Amino acid sequence: MNSENVTLCEKTVSSSYIRQGSQARRGHEQLIRHLLDQGKCPEEGWSESTVELFLNELAVMDSNNFLGNCGVGEREGRVASSLVARRHYRLIHGIGRSGDIAAVQPKAAGSSLLNKLTNSVVLDILKISGVRSVASCFVVPMATGMSLTLCRRSKSTRFLFSGFEPVVVENVTEGDELRTDLEAVQRKIGELGAENILCVHSTTSCFAPRVPDRLEELATMCAKHDIPHIVNNAYGVQSSKCMHLIQQGARVGRIDAFVQSLDKNFMVPVGGAIIAGFDECFVQEISKMYPGRASASPSLDVLITLLTLGANGYKRYLTERKEIYSFLAEELKTLASAHGERLLHTPHNPISLAMSLDGLQASSNQAVTQLGSMLFTRQVSGARVIPLGKEQTISGHTFRGFMSHSESYPCPYLNAASAVGITRGDVTLCVKRLDKCLKALKKHGKTAGSCSDQEAPDEE
Amino acid sequence: MNSENVTLCEKTVSSSYIRQGSQARRGHEQLIRHLLDQGKCPEEGWSESTVELFLNELAVMDSNNFLGNCGVGEREGRVASSLVARRHYRLIHGIGRSGDIAAVQPKAAGSSLLNKLTNSVVLDILKISGVRSVASCFVVPMATGMSLTLCRRSKSTRFLFSGFEPVVVENVTEGDELRTDLEAVQRKIGELGAENILCVHSTTSCFAPRVPDRLEELATMCAKHDIPHIVNNAYGVQSSKCMHLIQQGARVGRIDAFVQSLDKNFMVPVGGAIIAGFDECFVQEISKMYPGRASASPSLDVLITLLTLGANGYKRYLTERKEIYSFLAEELKTLASAHGERLLHTPHNPISLAMSLDGLQASSNQAVTQLGSMLFTRQVSGARVIPLGKEQTISGHTFRGFMSHSESYPCPYLNAASAVGITRGDVTLCVKRLDKCLKALKKHGKTAGSCSDQEAPDEE
Amino acid sequence: MNSENVTLCEKTVSSSYIRQGSQARRGHEQLIRHLLDQGKCPEEGWSESTVELFLNELAVMDSNNFLGNCGVGEREGRVASSLVARRHYRLIHGIGRSGDIAAVQPKAAGSSLLNKLTNSVVLDILKISGVRSVASCFVVPMATGMSLTLCRRSKSTRFLFSGFEPVVVENVTEGDELRTDLEAVQRKIGELGAENILCVHSTTSCFAPRVPDRLEELATMCAKHDIPHIVNNAYGVQSSKCMHLIQQGARVGRIDAFVQSLDKNFMVPVGGAIIAGFDECFVQEISKMYPGRASASPSLDVLITLLTLGANGYKRYLTERKEIYSFLAEELKTLASAHGERLLHTPHNPISLAMSLDGLQASSNQAVTQLGSMLFTRQVSGARVIPLGKEQTISGHTFRGFMSHSESYPCPYLNAASAVGITRGDVTLCVKRLDKCLKALKKHGKTAGSCSDQEAPDEE
Amino acid sequence: MNSENVTLCEKTVSSSYIRQGSQARRGHEQLIRHLLDQGKCPEEGWSESTVELFLNELAVMDSNNFLGNCGVGEREGRVASSLVARRHYRLIHGIGRSGDIAAVQPKAAGSSLLNKLTNSVVLDILKISGVRSVASCFVVPMATGMSLTLCRRSKSTRFLFSGFEPVVVENVTEGDELRTDLEAVQRKIGELGAENILCVHSTTSCFAPRVPDRLEELATMCAKHDIPHIVNNAYGVQSSKCMHLIQQGARVGRIDAFVQSLDKNFMVPVGGAIIAGFDECFVQEISKMYPGRASASPSLDVLITLLTLGANGYKRYLTERKEIYSFLAEELKTLASAHGERLLHTPHNPISLAMSLDGLQASSNQAVTQLGSMLFTRQVSGARVIPLGKEQTISGHTFRGFMSHSESYPCPYLNAASAVGITRGDVTLCVKRLDKCLKALKKHGKTAGSCSDQEAPDEE
Repeated sequence: MNSENVTLCEKTVSSSYIRQGSQARRGHEQLIRHLLDQGKCPEEGWSESTVELFLNELAVMDSNNFLGNCGVGEREGRVASSLVARRHYRLIHGIGRSGDIAAVQPKAAGSSLLNKLTNSVVLDILKISGVRSVASCFVVPMATGMSLTLCRRSKSTRFLFSGFEPVVVENVTEGDELRTDLEAVQRKIGELGAENILCVHSTTSCFAPRVPDRLEELATMCAKHDIPHIVNNAYGVQSSKCMHLIQQGARVGRIDAFVQSLDKNFMVPVGGAIIAGFDECFVQEISKMYPGRASASPSLDVLITLLTLGANGYKRYLTERKEIYSFLAEELKTLASAHGERLLHTPHNPISLAMSLDGLQASSNQAVTQLGSMLFTRQVSGARVIPLGKEQTISGHTFRGFMSHSESYPCPYLNAASAVGITRGDVTLCVKRLDKCLKALKKHGKTAGSCSDQEAPDEE
Repeated sequence: MNSENVTLCEKTVSSSYIRQGSQARRGHEQLIRHLLDQGKCPEEGWSESTVELFLNELAVMDSNNFLGNCGVGEREGRVASSLVARRHYRLIHGIGRSGDIAAVQPKAAGSSLLNKLTNSVVLDILKISGVRSVASCFVVPMATGMSLTLCRRSKSTRFLFSGFEPVVVENVTEGDELRTDLEAVQRKIGELGAENILCVHSTTSCFAPRVPDRLEELATMCAKHDIPHIVNNAYGVQSSKCMHLIQQGARVGRIDAFVQSLDKNFMVPVGGAIIAGFDECFVQEISKMYPGRASASPSLDVLITLLTLGANGYKRYLTERKEIYSFLAEELKTLASAHGERLLHTPHNPISLAMSLDGLQASSNQAVTQLGSMLFTRQVSGARVIPLGKEQTISGHTFRGFMSHSESYPCPYLNAASAVGITRGDVTLCVKRLDKCLKALKKHGKTAGSCSDQEAPDEE
Repeated sequence: MNSENVTLCEKTVSSSYIRQGSQARRGHEQLIRHLLDQGKCPEEGWSESTVELFLNELAVMDSNNFLGNCGVGEREGRVASSLVARRHYRLIHGIGRSGDIAAVQPKAAGSSLLNKLTNSVVLDILKISGVRSVASCFVVPMATGMSLTLCRRSKSTRFLFSGFEPVVVENVTEGDELRTDLEAVQRKIGELGAENILCVHSTTSCFAPRVPDRLEELATMCAKHDIPHIVNNAYGVQSSKCMHLIQQGARVGRIDAFVQSLDKNFMVPVGGAIIAGFDECFVQEISKMYPGRASASPSLDVLITLLTLGANGYKRYLTERKEIYSFLAEELKTLASAHGERLLHTPHNPISLAMSLDGLQASSNQAVTQLGSMLFTRQVSGARVIPLGKEQTISGHTFRGFMSHSESYPCPYLNAASAVGITRGDVTLCVKRLDKCLKALKKHGKTAGSCSDQEAPDEE
Repeated sequence: MNSENVTLCEKTVSSSYIRQGSQARRGHEQLIRHLLDQGKCPEEGWSESTVELFLNELAVMDSNNFLGNCGVGEREGRVASSLVARRHYRLIHGIGRSGDIAAVQPKAAGSSLLNKLTNSVVLDILKISGVRSVASCFVVPMATGMSLTLCRRSKSTRFLFSGFEPVVVENVTEGDELRTDLEAVQRKIGELGAENILCVHSTTSCFAPRVPDRLEELATMCAKHDIPHIVNNAYGVQSSKCMHLIQQGARVGRIDAFVQSLDKNFMVPVGGAIIAGFDECFVQEISKMYPGRASASPSLDVLITLLTLGANGYKRYLTERKEIYSFLAEELKTLASAHGERLLHTPHNPISLAMSLDGLQASSNQAVTQLGSMLFTRQVSGARVIPLGKEQTISGHTFRGFMSHSESYPCPYLNAASAVGITRGDVTLCVKRLDKCLKALKKHGKTAGSCSDQEAPDEE
């Protein structure tokens, strides 16, 4: 309430109470001031009441909420359903303008602020999470894959994206781990010629026994050969190890952009990603590749979430995730040894774990796939079962060892991950159910996981 | 956003857009200013966005939403469930204090404002609806009946409410109407002695063929004999005729208080009433009879509703209601004559209508009650069927003609009302279904409304 | 979704996924089944998603949500504002019918279920909290005070509530405590004659140094003299000691009804109470004293809260409260001794504590009241400051020692309480601020708490 | 509630009421059944209560809402903020899977249904709006521009999208209208060679004096030369004329895909588009070009909106829009003639209108741009002011007549449009303010639109 209205309130309710109330309002405003001034994620999370106050303040600055507005354009932010208006806090105009998703919209000062602030808060969190020298980033309402495409299309990645095709360099086995084959990459660059390579595309996010790529060495190689380097950091923000890899890669070599999923790292609905980089101009060029306005929904979700958690709240999540990773490893190890299996030794993968299924495979050809079905039916989600040398044909190509990141991993295995937001309860329940399934499969041999079990869906 | 924050915004988004946005905010603030200043229902309804902005402003003034509050009392407005917090807009402290439901709460400046403003806006609406000289009123979170009890308990209604018992004066038949028997009232006053009478209790709200009491004459009588006079105006606000009766009664005679239901007049959930009167001190005394804080929920509902509708919106509802009353009367008349029945002539009842069921009664003893069951099953709600001379025993007393306001109304009948919020569709559908039921009952005689029809519930 | 619709879904999405989804739905339904079947608070709290699913299911059973309904009555549950409809989950018809707040409404099967289930769940919680032999209870949308009035009005409390006036029996000092003067009560009964006493009204809920009444002895006395006995258990549900007193009182003597506040015990908004007793018929009679339908809002709030918490969640709150009581006592003791004051020894009061302010009083006459102002200004809410022998005149009577439960308590003091929902942070902050205020007052003598401090409001 | 639970309810509330309530539930279920069975937009809009019931039913089928779920994957649909969970109705998993935005997700049967049903309902609306032979479509959470890019990338549009560059064919002036220069297109095809053309890209949506492209002729040309043809139908769904153009083009020639904005046609927040086509396989191929899961938010918004409006509600909006187009034309014509200007004659543009500003231009060089600023300041949004021959340099190219679809339109002009959701009030207010601005500009010459007016923003 503005001061004039506060004065009017004092006619109705005694002024000492009103003054206290309006002083209390300043408490919320101070938080907002700090956010606007610093552009950083607040240390301590905001109450929902501050968050909603702030969103309402933004919304009244958009022209669709102007009381005196009259609209005669093609896009006026009108909303037919009040359910829809409410769920978007009446922020209807989206973000960006045609030609630049980071641009300000004249009709929507509030949504524009939302956009800028979200990018700024997210940048702060990327720094806190370990990539201290990140220069710029922005949220796009697209999944990680589509965002990576956008990065590759950017003009500054040499010339126009014309007629390029993906060249896959297989990983090499080191102990149990599948890891970047640096020599093969070097060889391939020599073979193709650096000038013919659009970019090197590496990843921090993969299922064990595969482990994050050797970013430092790849970045050095890219710098040397002047090849753009884009990193798929899909769910790497949640791991200080992954973030450290990117930070180091950029320090010693070349990383042009790294892309991360919003939902996988920040516990928001699917549909957004962060494109980040070490050169502000380059990131800006990418943002100009998104032709048109875009949904503000993913930005709104991540902003609400980060303001509510605060930097400390998010860090607590990361700490817990790390602890539960160790707990999950311990539990799987114990379970594995009880069933004559073993936890694969993949110390470089900080999120995903794999447990061998050799014994199960030995007992029956179908037991491994049956295990997948049984886990699905028992509401264990996210536990992937990878049989030996599964072949799959996609668009004419036949892939061996499909889904296992390798053409010839020596054993079948099961994946489980400790991702942000996981609880000890998840782990305990999963291991308990897994134990039951393994026992049942051993007992009954082929007949277990009977017809009542539904077909196992492939993971994503 | 305060001016300091607006300035900060201009660092991020170009100042011309921010300035326009913050100017737009002033549009909402102007509406709020007008409300605070005048204490009247706005002419034009507010957008939901202004309403919610205002409620959020109120909420941040309550101590349970202070960011720096620490509470060590027994009642701190804590909320365990966020679903509950949200649905009350975080206004948790209720209204009033022990000893006076109209009192201001030090811990809750916002809720206190809500309370005062609601009473003020509602007072304005009572004036607009026809009782122009009403002096004061307040909303209580109690139904009409309980509120009438509160009025009777008020100290100023003579002395303590001790050992009084209700004396019912039957209505007298005038044409089809059942109407106040003024002579009988006068007789009864003489009989009992005015000094022994706690108050006269009259009503504007009743089912046809009964009609509103002759308030003018009763009020004159009460003034003459110095007897308090309380009017049950349960759903009378929606009718200019009922409101006019009260206005006139107070002008020429004595009306101490009149009580109206929130839900029946303002389309809000059940549970609140307005206690109003012509002497501010007397109304205040009643408000002091409510011992303790009280739920703010009914106040919140009626405030949201009236701000959203605006005075004009509410008046439109009243106009429509009146038009649909005529439409309903026409439709029932036509239907009645098609079935050999007639619409009772009750011009003094502006809301409720009655149609005779003589023919139906003649066809079968049970047909009339069967009609009630059939209408219930067919989702016609609110249509009451009153058989001839139904007897009912309550607390030892036997009532004849129960529910019909008369011991011996000469015919069975069916009620239908045009109450605020009704649509033409309601009328058309009701008459169509009624027609079908009557046809079915005639065709099959006793057998109609077969076992598939559920027992008809008594109306309220 | 019913089975027919599930089958249709399988045409669109593969049946194994749909089957799993619809099996998952049964999980929610099982919880609801258990609630409907047992009428008890679930052990483990429900997710918000189950709670809202359930409320939606109730809402569709109310006639205002029937798709084919046509209403021609005076009360049809119409809602003008969608904000209002939503916040009540479209449960508009309230609870009860005229004549009985516990009665079922034909037009509102869902709201009626809500009402019955809430009363049943609340009864379960009263048992769990310590009054194991409670027979019946119901929620009323009125504050504790008004609910106590309702109890006294009940017919079975002898005869009609006519011309009675309250007789206060002062407490007696035992050590630091103010406690029931049993002899004085006995003397007063003899004086007035048991047959002239409407009821004995005792309390479990009071500010230290007063302590809960000696319920066992009072109940025995009431049983002996055949005097009804009503207990104000305002915020006693949160304390096993208070609940134990009631349980014991009812076991050895007579307690007719006990009344508790919803907001003080269950962290819901102000405005509801529970009336409970040991004789089902008597409780039912009270429920019939509420003339009219009533707001469902308090019932809805407490039901949502208890389903969300579960019995275990509520018990955790109670355990924490008890622990923080000890913490608060320790902290206040330390603070008191640092300032030359002492924590009053009031072991029989399990919720409220008092610390002497003798030294402060000695330093300046106004220092004690200034302390109150300072705490208010510093957002310490609920800490009451009681000066020596404050006099206040209410309705012609002059009360000495107003607000201190005693005409002549020997020292001024400050109250703080550990009420349900309090956190350690509240205690720490309060003690820290209190320390600062005491230091400031000592330093500056009279000048402290200068004009910038607002007038201290009386606590409720 | 399932039948077992209904039976349990009957223990608590009389079975006739429960039965009626549960019968009423079937009313909602019938609507849902019809939707699932037919996959069409319901004729009559659903109540919000049915919509929310349905969304809740979908949500409980997603694994993140399974009560017994334990998740050990990287993407489990966890949500940190309850504000976020609620605003998405707890539908967190998004739509699609990596590799196909139309694919079903094993973890999210409910979201998958949402996706399929939305596409189906939207297809129905495209048919109703005039493209009766459309075969398939899907909603993407991307703006129109990005969606057009996706279409061009589709493999079936010949070969890989490599090294193509856009070739613009200028419009030709016909009377006041700017219209497709068919000869120039034909010439350009000859020049480049059909086999070197990725696709022809036409549009239905443009600002007057430009008018929709001659789709019939272009489609015929494309068919003849075997060139893919993609139509930007950005806001064409709202106009039967635009839809008719597409329907005819596809009938007589070749249209591969047409793309429309969700927000511009369906009054939902910015950020979604519909990609539609006449060959199911081709549309499916495009959907497989979206690499990754995607936000369900735009699908959710348009589904809620269409279910709430119903086909009839949407048609009413279209009819109103058309009527207001005529009203706007009339009003602008009158205004123009009063100010010595004229409404340009552009009968082929069914949405956008243009009024000349010759006189204004004559009065002062800056008056035309000042008019833009003044309208912006006066909260007239969407009215574009196009000065004569504005030059703008973008990426090295200099465009003359920027924003005016032509290098050399002979006069400056102002645009206003009648877009879906516009009201008569918008038109009246706009014309009134426009009138005032024009008067002020004439009166004061250069000095009008003084410094208090902010710089006019470019439209989008």
